[in-house]
Amino acid sequence: MVEYIGIEGIQRIVGRLGPAPFIEGLAAEIETDYRRWGEFDKSARHAIHSPGGVIELMPTSDGEMYSFKYVNGHPKNTALGLLTVTAFGVLADVETGYPLLLSELTVTTALRTAAMSALAARWMARPDSRVMALIGNGAQSEFQAIAFHHMLGIREFRLYDVDGHATEKLARNLHALGERDLQVKPCRSAAEAVEGADIVTTVTADKCNAIILTPEMIAPGMHLNAVGGDCPGKTELHADILRRVDARVIVEYEPQSRIEGEIQQLPADFSVTEFTQVLSGVATGRASPAEVTIFDSVGFALEDYSALRYLYKLQRQQNQPRKIDLIPHLDNPKNLFGLLGANTTRLPATPSSGRPLRSLAVDLTSI
Amino acid sequence: MVEYIGIEGIQRIVGRLGPAPFIEGLAAEIETDYRRWGEFDKSARHAIHSPGGVIELMPTSDGEMYSFKYVNGHPKNTALGLLTVTAFGVLADVETGYPLLLSELTVTTALRTAAMSALAARWMARPDSRVMALIGNGAQSEFQAIAFHHMLGIREFRLYDVDGHATEKLARNLHALGERDLQVKPCRSAAEAVEGADIVTTVTADKCNAIILTPEMIAPGMHLNAVGGDCPGKTELHADILRRVDARVIVEYEPQSRIEGEIQQLPADFSVTEFTQVLSGVATGRASPAEVTIFDSVGFALEDYSALRYLYKLQRQQNQPRKIDLIPHLDNPKNLFGLLGANTTRLPATPSSGRPLRSLAVDLTSI
Repeated sequence: MVEYIGIEGIQRIVGRLGPAPFIEGLAAEIETDYRRWGEFDKSARHAIHSPGGVIELMPTSDGEMYSFKYVNGHPKNTALGLLTVTAFGVLADVETGYPLLLSELTVTTALRTAAMSALAARWMARPDSRVMALIGNGAQSEFQAIAFHHMLGIREFRLYDVDGHATEKLARNLHALGERDLQVKPCRSAAEAVEGADIVTTVTADKCNAIILTPEMIAPGMHLNAVGGDCPGKTELHADILRRVDARVIVEYEPQSRIEGEIQQLPADFSVTEFTQVLSGVATGRASPAEVTIFDSVGFALEDYSALRYLYKLQRQQNQPRKIDLIPHLDNPKNLFGLLGANTTRLPATPSSGRPLRSLAVDLTSI
Repeated sequence: MVEYIGIEGIQRIVGRLGPAPFIEGLAAEIETDYRRWGEFDKSARHAIHSPGGVIELMPTSDGEMYSFKYVNGHPKNTALGLLTVTAFGVLADVETGYPLLLSELTVTTALRTAAMSALAARWMARPDSRVMALIGNGAQSEFQAIAFHHMLGIREFRLYDVDGHATEKLARNLHALGERDLQVKPCRSAAEAVEGADIVTTVTADKCNAIILTPEMIAPGMHLNAVGGDCPGKTELHADILRRVDARVIVEYEPQSRIEGEIQQLPADFSVTEFTQVLSGVATGRASPAEVTIFDSVGFALEDYSALRYLYKLQRQQNQPRKIDLIPHLDNPKNLFGLLGANTTRLPATPSSGRPLRSLAVDLTSI
């Protein structure tokens, strides 16, 4: 039996803790894992692209546990009433290869992406940052806002989305949190949202080389948290922002970011720093208050590994885990056929059972 | 909601049809898909190796449906009472990226591997083949026997395994099928089992360059179905068998087989034929009764795609599909946070609900 966390399960787990403490706890797990970067098997994710989107697999392992995430990205889904991104994943035991946990990761991906964004910003944004522009007010935006409010002390959010209904929804959800020290200001353009912001988070969905931010919007000292550009041909920043002499670009895993991140717009020798180097002290996240820091986030398998292990631990602390019969249990592991034999050989002895089973013997002679 | 087939589900589906007709139906699906080889996105599987085994992901897509399989291979598991191979997989809709079906694939992998073996043998073995040596009598062996009995008319099985208990188990299970035209003969060595056989199937588990078959065992006209060598460093045949001048080697997907198959023992320019070429008439499976034909099987993602689509169809024909809440359903797909908001904002209004939920507002101010 494999432990299972579905939508009801993630509602229960996050509901008990609260989203902000959940995100903060998850950020701590992610930081712990990035600090032991060398222990992980790393590869750029496997992607199959189609006209409407992409389906990806993101595996990794630290030699003790293995995890992978299935995740799609289909920007046109929302027009059909469907999510742009859905995801699920599995945590497995490396020693035996047996899966331990199957979990939903649609909600969890939003939580872990926000946790990673805020974690990176802790090392890259100015400590006195209080105002964040949030461009792209879709499914992931509330999670980003909660993470930056809780973990970085952001007090004012300036919202912009080409879809005004999305901005209204985000503003309504943030108001409903009932936080007195959290101000929300819808804006009429990206430029209006960005002006005077300490941090700019872009989390848009269009699968194209969009230019959400242009060079003249960017002021010295800003931290850019570029979340939405995460696919070949899918970027959000004008390349000249990355090329600024006072800019510092941090990525998660360089080989994957070269393919998927904002830096796909630049030559392969463009200098970037991996986040793990900031944690280990080999590199700095910000050298001066005037630098423009850019977290070119695409999402890396290690973060999902951290999330799955965190969920596995929380479910065991909080509940009797729910289980599903995804993997067989056998008294004799070499007798896999016994699982079927019971069904097929039982039939001739119980012809009156009323079940429409046909025995193997009957089938073999009749076909 | 995602449809689900667990162990109980696969028992029900295969039980209704019977294993042999299930395998024959699946072989037809696999053949159909190999005939449209060019439509599939193909890649060698992603593998993470550890001292005890390997965990692999096997994705593919034909542009309409996407599938992947998770599968492990841990030869030492049986000593712990666990299966060497466990597996599960997902079928998804390429248009939206949404998963359609999550299914167990441990039992199904044994069924599909047998279906693929018998399908290949139909094109490669002599039509008058009646005797098969079956070396390796573990979890997959009954499935191989049923497939070759049903699809190729094999009447005599000669069994050998280093573990005599495994051979006893296989013989018992085959006797229990109650087939009058099926003879079973346990043997004391691989050489004894192979002598006089028309087809030799090797399906052993050791992760090493084992030599299950040596050159002097092989007679002209034999068909070798080499199933167990499916990993770097895991082979079953002496390389000189592959090098015979009268030998013809067929593989599933050449780039993967160069890494994992028996041919990993040979230079990269050693000539092999892909199975799809045999189906399309570009190549022949067997040119003369005296040729030694070798199906160097490792298992390819297309076969799991076929199996998942077949299961999806069968479950819908036979039953009300069982479903799990792996993916959220939202009235407004941009309001993913609403899934959690309901939990966290409801709490203050119902303090007497008795559930130990803590609201976001409380948590944000208390931490």
